Amino acid sequence: MSLSKPIIAVTMGDPAGVGPELCLHLLANREIEGICEVVIFGDLGVLRAAAEKTGLPMPQADRLRDCGAISMEDFQYGCVSAKTGRAGYTYVEESIQSALSGEIDGVATNPLNKEALHQAGVPYPGHTEMFADQTGTAGFCMLQYSDAVTCSFVTCHVGYHEVPKRITTERIFEVIELTREALLRIRNREPKLVVLGLNPHAGENGLFGEREEERFILPAVEQAKQLGRNLEGPIPPDTAFIESRRATSDAFICMYHDQGHIPLKALAFDTAVNTTLGLPFPRTSVDHGTALDIAWQGRANPSSLFEAVKLNVLLCARK
Amino acid sequence: MSLSKPIIAVTMGDPAGVGPELCLHLLANREIEGICEVVIFGDLGVLRAAAEKTGLPMPQADRLRDCGAISMEDFQYGCVSAKTGRAGYTYVEESIQSALSGEIDGVATNPLNKEALHQAGVPYPGHTEMFADQTGTAGFCMLQYSDAVTCSFVTCHVGYHEVPKRITTERIFEVIELTREALLRIRNREPKLVVLGLNPHAGENGLFGEREEERFILPAVEQAKQLGRNLEGPIPPDTAFIESRRATSDAFICMYHDQGHIPLKALAFDTAVNTTLGLPFPRTSVDHGTALDIAWQGRANPSSLFEAVKLNVLLCARK
Repeated sequence: MSLSKPIIAVTMGDPAGVGPELCLHLLANREIEGICEVVIFGDLGVLRAAAEKTGLPMPQADRLRDCGAISMEDFQYGCVSAKTGRAGYTYVEESIQSALSGEIDGVATNPLNKEALHQAGVPYPGHTEMFADQTGTAGFCMLQYSDAVTCSFVTCHVGYHEVPKRITTERIFEVIELTREALLRIRNREPKLVVLGLNPHAGENGLFGEREEERFILPAVEQAKQLGRNLEGPIPPDTAFIESRRATSDAFICMYHDQGHIPLKALAFDTAVNTTLGLPFPRTSVDHGTALDIAWQGRANPSSLFEAVKLNVLLCARK
Repeated sequence: MSLSKPIIAVTMGDPAGVGPELCLHLLANREIEGICEVVIFGDLGVLRAAAEKTGLPMPQADRLRDCGAISMEDFQYGCVSAKTGRAGYTYVEESIQSALSGEIDGVATNPLNKEALHQAGVPYPGHTEMFADQTGTAGFCMLQYSDAVTCSFVTCHVGYHEVPKRITTERIFEVIELTREALLRIRNREPKLVVLGLNPHAGENGLFGEREEERFILPAVEQAKQLGRNLEGPIPPDTAFIESRRATSDAFICMYHDQGHIPLKALAFDTAVNTTLGLPFPRTSVDHGTALDIAWQGRANPSSLFEAVKLNVLLCARK
């Protein structure tokens, strides 16, 4: 553990969403202040307007990296627009550059709106792809961390029908190793990992599916076991998340988005932290969207952002 | 509500599994005795041996339909075999014939072992298909009922890659109607239904997948709305099961097995009841397997069987 507190960049997210008010909550939180130095990557005018609108305290100017990406005249909160999509993207770009240059230790991100990004012509479906591409990271994966359940993903933002094509032994092994490395840092001991099957009942010995479990998943599990990793699988996806197994497992390696996101949202809604594994610096994110319907009303729950910053600190300290 | 109590057939399940001891628990339960007449479809010798082994009370002989399918010399409890697979299937066949002839009002089933069925040459992957085929039912679906969450299934025991081919507007509409009819009986009011998407984020306006939501799911939802049904969808699968939505929804219509079984097992393990909708009589089942590792030790939890019988009574009474 280093003596100085880590410096965590927190992007403001899409200005029209709940990101600005969540930043205000974060900067007012004593527990966060005690464990790290937060620098908001956003726009001063937007943060000031959000403080006025919600009644939350306005922080000192030195807590903000003013990116000059948008002003209040350019947008209406609660509405999707290309301009706010572009601004939200600019905050992320600048945070990545700062992390790569060593100015900051990690990045925690507030939500972007996929439709706004699309309208702005941003060529990424989400944060994960932005960070991977702009840091030149080839082997990466998403991990969602919460007290109730933690999942990493072999495939993520792809259509249902595309998943089987992407389930390869190499990819599964890569995700096992990335997950193991992150959990080793978080837990400070060898973690227990569980690898899920693809088909109902993990194929039930070939009854369902095309034996993806035997052809691709099992070989990756065996390969990891030979390196001494503590893991089991492929197991039937539906029994993976029963209470007794959750209590004895550190992370679940999921084959596709909803296999892990369904239990995550059911069991840990608003508290899970999204992490991109494999990057040169820790990157964490809130688990929710821009929530345009309640944005700028001071009603947004900041707990997921608090958790994102806390996990980031943990990953920085043990780098 | 009829004045006489309904007669519920309860199949003993695979003799090598937990079925026999669960039957003994059931027959000793006062609450069950108060709401229905239970008749076990099984083997007298097996039930007697299970009572001796576990110390549970042996019921009177008139509570049993002795099918003469297997004797204790033919098998070892806790082991998979063709003989127990065949016996378990025989109990189901006889219960179906009794239900079709009107002798009994509904059937609740104990678990079969798919591998034992397979070894016995039984041409069905599970109970649902047996009941559908032997009652000549073409339009049927599985529904899993619990206090925490209730799901019905557009597809079920098929491999992951086969699901998109089976997602048709006609099939989705059929499952909506079957689900609505069952929940109408259970709740005694018009139920609120939620229909899930297939892709991550329900496709997010075509970003993921092949627009299955717009092409197949939405038209079925619109068709049901025109009949006055109370439903919404297609919604993103991962946010379907958050607590606030569960509290305001009566049932979730799922596109594939694990989409519904993951939250069911995570939130209602050992208490969900499996029902086959569309049959000429109510059919319910426990939510768990034969649990060969703990069979015949008196350790099996009978709560899922109790719930299966209770739901069956509810469906019988309001037929």
